[in-house]
Amino acid sequence: MNKELQDSLKRKAAVKAADYVENGMIVGLGSGSTVTMLVDELGRRVQKDGLQFTGVATSISTAQQAKSLGIKIVDLDMVDAIDLTIDGADEVDSHFNGIKGGGGNLLWEKIVAINSKKIIWVVDQSKVVDTIGAFHLAVDVIPLGSQHLLKKFDDAGLKPVIRIGKDDHPFKTDSNNLIIDLHLQKIEEAKKLADYLIKTVGVVEHGLFLNMVDTVIVGKEGTPQVLTNPNHG
Amino acid sequence: MNKELQDSLKRKAAVKAADYVENGMIVGLGSGSTVTMLVDELGRRVQKDGLQFTGVATSISTAQQAKSLGIKIVDLDMVDAIDLTIDGADEVDSHFNGIKGGGGNLLWEKIVAINSKKIIWVVDQSKVVDTIGAFHLAVDVIPLGSQHLLKKFDDAGLKPVIRIGKDDHPFKTDSNNLIIDLHLQKIEEAKKLADYLIKTVGVVEHGLFLNMVDTVIVGKEGTPQVLTNPNHG
Repeated sequence: MNKELQDSLKRKAAVKAADYVENGMIVGLGSGSTVTMLVDELGRRVQKDGLQFTGVATSISTAQQAKSLGIKIVDLDMVDAIDLTIDGADEVDSHFNGIKGGGGNLLWEKIVAINSKKIIWVVDQSKVVDTIGAFHLAVDVIPLGSQHLLKKFDDAGLKPVIRIGKDDHPFKTDSNNLIIDLHLQKIEEAKKLADYLIKTVGVVEHGLFLNMVDTVIVGKEGTPQVLTNPNHG
Repeated sequence: MNKELQDSLKRKAAVKAADYVENGMIVGLGSGSTVTMLVDELGRRVQKDGLQFTGVATSISTAQQAKSLGIKIVDLDMVDAIDLTIDGADEVDSHFNGIKGGGGNLLWEKIVAINSKKIIWVVDQSKVVDTIGAFHLAVDVIPLGSQHLLKKFDDAGLKPVIRIGKDDHPFKTDSNNLIIDLHLQKIEEAKKLADYLIKTVGVVEHGLFLNMVDTVIVGKEGTPQVLTNPNHG
């Protein structure tokens, strides 16, 4: 799929997702290229249609974009709960298990997600897969000792690489952590891997979001498709 | 036990622990009041006895103290492994399960610990207990969403309190995280609690150090007592 087509599918799905935002809601705003389109659309509706909602951002960049468009942004700790979070994903399978973290914001995204009553992911159809893992799995780690962690993951066959930022230095998250990307190709036992990763000292969080999402809006030619997680609500 | 006596017991144990540091070693240096005494003694030996070793610090304050005494300090990622780490502890039971984190440095302390071939804790006899938990259990958490985490722990009956620093603001760790202290009184199922805590999104690390220590040097009247963990090599 060429980038132009992919972007147009993402945009259609993002516009569809914006329909779920209602007046008065507390809305978690994800991060990444699809969410950028969503926030653009929500900003348009705030300015043109008088839509009123309060956003909680999962990254500094999303907060900046939203504020610049006139969307009210508050800190997660200022609200009791989030009514709805809309985010992107790098991959999602038919069990509603996904990988997030391509943009490096998985830690804040997961914290916002677990405090949300409902979660929608917006993806283009190339992100819907049989088995997750072709996309690299991001692991958010404490800088101290990260080279030792890299060696441990390498010894465990997890094909780890420290993520490098645009400035050719190690990528830093909004919490000043590093990202180790695991190039696994296929993740057959996601739950087991998640358990191993989270129990590893130095790991803060990982990009496996297992059965957390309620609804996936898939941008495809024609109308976006809405997939509903049968295990939720 | 009055503070003067306690300090004198700590100091005797710290001096005993310093005997384990040999020329050429890579030595992990813990944090806290007992380790301050240890580092003073090691600095004395470096200057007076020509002791030569390289230190890896578990906190910014320990690094500063050590450097000021002429002890060479390097980053954990500069060494292949740590030969020996000497640290304090807030409590330790007969199964060699302990609580650390009274000083707020448990995250870096645990990262250094898991990269150490041998671990020694130095404590005074008041820290040796039948059941851990009378001392508050520190949990290192990401600031984002920490109020929600506090509520979750409260709902789970864990008696959580956000730690306040000397400046009356929330205490910040060397990784810029917050500390939530759990006032549990008794921890009967430490392994289960550790699993629950580490799997909770927003938790970076906790102060349960279960069966990690090899040797505990206990400051008591007369000669310090050396306890050896029978489960370790």
